[in-house]
Amino acid sequence: MLGMGAYTPLAGFMGEGGWRSVCADMKLANGVFWPIPITLSASQELADQISIGEEVALCDGQSGDIMAIMSVGEKYSIDKEFECSNVYRTTDPAHPGVKKVLEQGAVNLGGPVSVLSEGEYREKYANLYLRPEQSRALFIEKGWSRVAAFQTRNPMHRSHEYLAKIAVEVTDGVFIHQVLGALKPGDIPADVRTRAIQAMIDNYFRKDTVIQAGYPIEMRYAGPREALLHALIRQNFGCSHLIVGRDHAGVGDYYGPFDAHHIFDELWEGALVTRALKIDITFYCKKCYGMATAKTCPHDQKHHVSISGTQQREMLMNDADIPPEFSRPEVVAILKEYYASQK
Amino acid sequence: MLGMGAYTPLAGFMGEGGWRSVCADMKLANGVFWPIPITLSASQELADQISIGEEVALCDGQSGDIMAIMSVGEKYSIDKEFECSNVYRTTDPAHPGVKKVLEQGAVNLGGPVSVLSEGEYREKYANLYLRPEQSRALFIEKGWSRVAAFQTRNPMHRSHEYLAKIAVEVTDGVFIHQVLGALKPGDIPADVRTRAIQAMIDNYFRKDTVIQAGYPIEMRYAGPREALLHALIRQNFGCSHLIVGRDHAGVGDYYGPFDAHHIFDELWEGALVTRALKIDITFYCKKCYGMATAKTCPHDQKHHVSISGTQQREMLMNDADIPPEFSRPEVVAILKEYYASQK
Repeated sequence: MLGMGAYTPLAGFMGEGGWRSVCADMKLANGVFWPIPITLSASQELADQISIGEEVALCDGQSGDIMAIMSVGEKYSIDKEFECSNVYRTTDPAHPGVKKVLEQGAVNLGGPVSVLSEGEYREKYANLYLRPEQSRALFIEKGWSRVAAFQTRNPMHRSHEYLAKIAVEVTDGVFIHQVLGALKPGDIPADVRTRAIQAMIDNYFRKDTVIQAGYPIEMRYAGPREALLHALIRQNFGCSHLIVGRDHAGVGDYYGPFDAHHIFDELWEGALVTRALKIDITFYCKKCYGMATAKTCPHDQKHHVSISGTQQREMLMNDADIPPEFSRPEVVAILKEYYASQK
Repeated sequence: MLGMGAYTPLAGFMGEGGWRSVCADMKLANGVFWPIPITLSASQELADQISIGEEVALCDGQSGDIMAIMSVGEKYSIDKEFECSNVYRTTDPAHPGVKKVLEQGAVNLGGPVSVLSEGEYREKYANLYLRPEQSRALFIEKGWSRVAAFQTRNPMHRSHEYLAKIAVEVTDGVFIHQVLGALKPGDIPADVRTRAIQAMIDNYFRKDTVIQAGYPIEMRYAGPREALLHALIRQNFGCSHLIVGRDHAGVGDYYGPFDAHHIFDELWEGALVTRALKIDITFYCKKCYGMATAKTCPHDQKHHVSISGTQQREMLMNDADIPPEFSRPEVVAILKEYYASQK
């Protein structure tokens, strides 16, 4: 993220002052808006071997490749409860974002980073990997001044298509921006997901209204604070808007369904240029006889076509019929082919 | 329009300087934005009987009721070709707006107006008639800061409903603002239209997302200039947006389909606070399997459900089936009942 320019204006990992003011006030030490700490932790043992002012190599945990050189300017221990209660609004260790913070080493290393490699993403996802400078150039080339980013880590069904189509109506185009990187059990691999999304774009959108791309963020499930981070990153990518749905970047019941909408209204003037395109939950409603949102549909939920993620996986694996109200047949065909290949 | 406050900040009918600068530069004599002349014409014979400085009564042409007292400050003759070529972009007498200008008397009377009566509208359309101060108060009461006005003089079918629903997604609510007043042959009377629109609101919108109201404007069919006038008037009514569809307020082939969109981008900074919510033509597409616009639907027109106004009238009069892709059954029932009563 640092290497591709997605974390501009950060020059590296946050020092203690920045970490503290980001947690408490969503501001870097220099006062610039930033909603979630970007820190590098180490064990006490490892930290003890590093002197202030020393340069250290940062390596990929899996491949061992050297990714960057960091000039260690600070070593500090953090109050994890303070970070979690501010950023995640909870200190419950069952929260996946809180859990990661609690699992971090005892010491944070702060200092500027010189990036040597952007990792495997650029080659592995050659069709998707766009740096912010590239997406900005692409938007200028297309004459797009209003661009809505859509954050996703899943294939897109009609509910997602409808979110994107509402955005197409009020902007010049939509930037379908996928989360690349580590998969969890049950996740659809990026290449399958990409083909499924492309099938939807090719068959159900007008040419030159959608761009598909990806970037290597890791989800924190920080709900409202993470919605702000997603928007800030999209500002770097040149997007005027971020589509923020119900319970954006939330998990479980930690956040109210519209907390991630409201937090955009609580920022100070000039904090963020990119704005939230706030949309409620989307679905096909049989009484509306079309796609709808909870903001437009007055009908009871029993009329809504809704299939849970677990149900979907089962239906796709068992080659069951997925109703056209829920997903496009072109998308379903690609997902079924993938599940069949996994048997 | 003057009496209800819809033409704020006009104090009366325009004098020669205002008329000229409105035509040429869309500015009142004091530099404030105004896109279409609001003038009062009289025959040479009548004008000769009125002295400058004299007060005259303005009467309703049909009822003879005195509507206002005007203090005549100016008498001037206008260059109709200059007005039409600037305001209507044509001097073709077949254009209905041009035709009206050409039919005006030879002399314009300018001066401030003291309104005595708002005419029959307030009583005749008690449920619909809202003054700008009333709609502003209503929006504040509802907590709506972003309100999209939808201008209509027809019952609303699904294409219109979809326009309104896109607007609901990106604002706090939609102000369905009807043109009251004189009917043309084939027009549906206001009370029938109101009931049909209310049936759509009651059955297909969430409570408190739509307000239905009306105002006594007369259409000029000036396309882009009239779209600006509609927006300026809605600014008086407290709306942040005006829904501007394809060929808004256009007639025949006098204007390009998006002229009324583009003109909003050509205004100077601060001319107009109310913005255009620009939406392309809307329809049901069988391949999209739902409502769509020309901006989102990539499919051939043969897949679109489209029924012309003439076809609709015939189908409604003959009690033919109107497909649910085109219009809501609750709306169709009210219109059919009306046509049956006319037989």
